[in-house]
Amino acid sequence: MRQHYHEELDDINNCLVEMANSVGSAMSKATTSLLDADIELANLVIEGDEGIDARRENIEQRCFTLLARQAPVATDLRTITAAMRMISDLERMGDLAVHVAKLARMRFPEHTVPQELRPIFLEAGHVAESLVAQTATVIAKLDVEAAAVLEADDDLMDQLHRQLFSELLSKDWPHGMEAAIDITLLGRYYERFADHAVSVARRVVFLVTGEREMHAVHE
Amino acid sequence: MRQHYHEELDDINNCLVEMANSVGSAMSKATTSLLDADIELANLVIEGDEGIDARRENIEQRCFTLLARQAPVATDLRTITAAMRMISDLERMGDLAVHVAKLARMRFPEHTVPQELRPIFLEAGHVAESLVAQTATVIAKLDVEAAAVLEADDDLMDQLHRQLFSELLSKDWPHGMEAAIDITLLGRYYERFADHAVSVARRVVFLVTGEREMHAVHE
Repeated sequence: MRQHYHEELDDINNCLVEMANSVGSAMSKATTSLLDADIELANLVIEGDEGIDARRENIEQRCFTLLARQAPVATDLRTITAAMRMISDLERMGDLAVHVAKLARMRFPEHTVPQELRPIFLEAGHVAESLVAQTATVIAKLDVEAAAVLEADDDLMDQLHRQLFSELLSKDWPHGMEAAIDITLLGRYYERFADHAVSVARRVVFLVTGEREMHAVHE
Repeated sequence: MRQHYHEELDDINNCLVEMANSVGSAMSKATTSLLDADIELANLVIEGDEGIDARRENIEQRCFTLLARQAPVATDLRTITAAMRMISDLERMGDLAVHVAKLARMRFPEHTVPQELRPIFLEAGHVAESLVAQTATVIAKLDVEAAAVLEADDDLMDQLHRQLFSELLSKDWPHGMEAAIDITLLGRYYERFADHAVSVARRVVFLVTGEREMHAVHE
């Protein structure tokens, strides 16, 4: 019984890694749909969100079954708590990929992102992908060191976000208000995506080190 | 034992109502700090967020204790699942109030919101307060009817949000890009706040009616 229980915990961990990978793939496709004004890819991301939500449901259900059947304490209980919080973050990351895809779709066949801002979003997309890949590694290997690298990537995302704002605030923004609103929201979506990835990694750190995580508000 | 258990469940419900009230009070103060450029009030909201996070921790801990000690099934298990999801929404609503307060503080002693947009934010503040008050009622009384009213208020918030966009997109927006970015973000904060309130109410409906909630992405 006890053996089966730890297998089930391992299995939940594998599902978390898979969910992180799905979310990373969604954001990666969303970025491409944005930069290529590819409406079919955008639709794929939007329709694919149900699958991510289903993964969340599945993991949550398994956590509850474990809680109900095994009444775990101490570390095992903390592992399950952490998993249940991580799926909230991961589901939200999937939603943010959908928001990006929807902005791509809304302006189709036009490009949502003006030509000279493409490099920033290309980079933001790369950073987002890298963050999710590292988050998946942190979950898979309970690797606290990798989590530190992840915080550095998050700083990079903040820097890109600031860069967007200075473009918007430059004296000769030529793209009008609609594009400015789109860019402001897109910047926020990528930044929030990164924040949630870091939040997932911090929960793993909390789990491994037993340190109390900071409940700082996302800046 | 069983008696004590249901008392504990009721008590968790009371804590949820109190948490909703705290969040409502935070957003109400944040709106005032925004409209009056009141930096002291803004700071109160920002510093007060720890208290809201602590409420979340407390409720979560109690849920886990109940799960671990009682191994509830069926309705009781669903009640605890719902509570644990609701505290995520409520905590996030507190964060959004902080975001509003931070934008008020960032522009101090200037006003973040241009004079002619004040009525929209005043109204958004009222709708937010009303939404939270109703959410608290839905939780307290498990009142499915009240949840429907809440969805109507959410529509009102969406309408205010669209109104903001048309102000921004009007030909003669005279307040420059910085204000436009602030307004875009503020609009998003209030809209998300409303979405989370509706999400909390839907969980109660799900709980009461046993209907499967829709995992639609927030528009």
